[in-house]
Amino acid sequence: MIKSPYLLFLGDAADSLAAKVAQGIKDWRPDMSVGQFRMEGCNADLGLADMTFEQAVAAGAETLVIGVANRGGFISPAWQAKLIEALEAGLDIASGLHNLLRDEPVLVAKAAELGRELFDVRVPSVEYPIGTGVKRTGKRCLPVGTDCSVGKMYTGLAMEKEMLARKMKATFRPTGQTGILITGDGVPLDAVVADFMAGSVEYLTPDNDPDHWDLIEGQGSLYHASYSGVTMALIHGGQPDALVLCHEPTRKHMRGLPDYQQPSLEELRDTALILARVVNPDVKVVGISVNTQHLDEDAAVSYLAETEARMGIPTVDPFRHGAARLVDALEAC
Amino acid sequence: MIKSPYLLFLGDAADSLAAKVAQGIKDWRPDMSVGQFRMEGCNADLGLADMTFEQAVAAGAETLVIGVANRGGFISPAWQAKLIEALEAGLDIASGLHNLLRDEPVLVAKAAELGRELFDVRVPSVEYPIGTGVKRTGKRCLPVGTDCSVGKMYTGLAMEKEMLARKMKATFRPTGQTGILITGDGVPLDAVVADFMAGSVEYLTPDNDPDHWDLIEGQGSLYHASYSGVTMALIHGGQPDALVLCHEPTRKHMRGLPDYQQPSLEELRDTALILARVVNPDVKVVGISVNTQHLDEDAAVSYLAETEARMGIPTVDPFRHGAARLVDALEAC
Repeated sequence: MIKSPYLLFLGDAADSLAAKVAQGIKDWRPDMSVGQFRMEGCNADLGLADMTFEQAVAAGAETLVIGVANRGGFISPAWQAKLIEALEAGLDIASGLHNLLRDEPVLVAKAAELGRELFDVRVPSVEYPIGTGVKRTGKRCLPVGTDCSVGKMYTGLAMEKEMLARKMKATFRPTGQTGILITGDGVPLDAVVADFMAGSVEYLTPDNDPDHWDLIEGQGSLYHASYSGVTMALIHGGQPDALVLCHEPTRKHMRGLPDYQQPSLEELRDTALILARVVNPDVKVVGISVNTQHLDEDAAVSYLAETEARMGIPTVDPFRHGAARLVDALEAC
Repeated sequence: MIKSPYLLFLGDAADSLAAKVAQGIKDWRPDMSVGQFRMEGCNADLGLADMTFEQAVAAGAETLVIGVANRGGFISPAWQAKLIEALEAGLDIASGLHNLLRDEPVLVAKAAELGRELFDVRVPSVEYPIGTGVKRTGKRCLPVGTDCSVGKMYTGLAMEKEMLARKMKATFRPTGQTGILITGDGVPLDAVVADFMAGSVEYLTPDNDPDHWDLIEGQGSLYHASYSGVTMALIHGGQPDALVLCHEPTRKHMRGLPDYQQPSLEELRDTALILARVVNPDVKVVGISVNTQHLDEDAAVSYLAETEARMGIPTVDPFRHGAARLVDALEAC
């Protein structure tokens, strides 16, 4: 578990897109960060207070979170000097970069010397069990996508926000690096060894109160040839009571697979239900979350209305219009 | 790639079941071993010539294959002394045990000193790529099971044997520890990191002659909550042209999951086809392989006949009656 509050490290981010991990933390956990740390030449700005490491520690910060992805995912020499300063100032460091903090001998030695922790959320820190399929108490919602990167994480986070505002019991359960950095905990599912995938999802979503909802972060797609096994493990390890179909309507082909087209929402619904019923015969598809970021408002509204009329279940863009109708559907479960 | 021929190490096997890896090698690759090595108290006997390490090397053996599983999968002190002798005699060592040869400092040091190789087939030795889903040349057959451990490996090996007897181009492609030791090569799929599962299956079954068949070893089951993600990756990474349904009709529940029942063959057929069509729209279910080991001959024959009448495709126990009809079905593809 990564200690909060955070100081968000934007480094020398070339643009705001490079700082999207930090942006996600600020969007979804606005109280989790005391400020941002920017190096010379940084072109990203979250609108948080710029702080030195000492100021952040004085403001209560526990962990410097690397909220920026640079090309190649490596830790540059310019960053390294700053990270050493952060450790010296009293901060732990957490990173989702492809290259690991633990593989930087200078950082490892300094952290050991000072008693600080380095968190590489890209790799598992737990020995997960084999899945058992045993029925768990509490309720679980899983978004499943027609493709990768269609907004499954934002759907879950938007639903959690709405549910907490309604005083419902709800917990977003991250399964990817960004989600883990946003909440401070989770399972980096794409880095788990095959035999333990379903077990790691069971571990992430244990027994809970009967009226508690886990909002599991989805990964991949049953229709994505590269990552469908991960999606399958989420469905069988997650034991969902509710599925939300996620879709991005402007894709020309499956992400990274030019020879493949997205399935229809009907195909996704039918296939996901067949597979989810193996572990939960009562599972329902409760709604559809459409990522309309590439449509203007009129086009978005009419796409949502047409899809809802066709599919017969609440269809919204939770980021654009809020997740209230998806949460209404969960409450009706 | 593990060098053959082998000397099969039976150690102090408590009974013949404990030596089932060695039995598999002898059954399916009868020319691959020069003999067997048994310690005092060994109760297994493959009927091969008993040899000392020196005799085996003189007979051409390159590798001592640990063909026995002891309780806990560890390397006992009694074994260790013998394994050192094997290295000194000139043999490499290959193992599928849970505990790794590479974690035994004495063996590692001796192998390094003598220039011998230690193969732990339980863990990947290759950095597999991410799957691309790009269509490959050649043909591929994948068995899919109603449950785990229903005879998928034996089905593939029996089909390969029949196809090679017919001078067809065919290669069994192991995805599990026993299969890898039987053939000397393959992918230990259950130990591959989630993101690379489909890619590892693509790596295992590359472009080939248009009339060449890969007989991919199946794993898990789409209906097994613990391992379905691995099966999914095999379907999408394997791009099968032909599926064979595998079934064990006497199971009381899914293996290791007392709360779960096997699906019907109809359910398995329909679900597997939906998912396999994502990567190969022309995929067909060509036959059914039933593991009848717990039925007597009359019960087996009538179960096979009834199932074939119901399902409308060749239904055989390839271990009991041969794989000829399954191979006929592949030839018709």
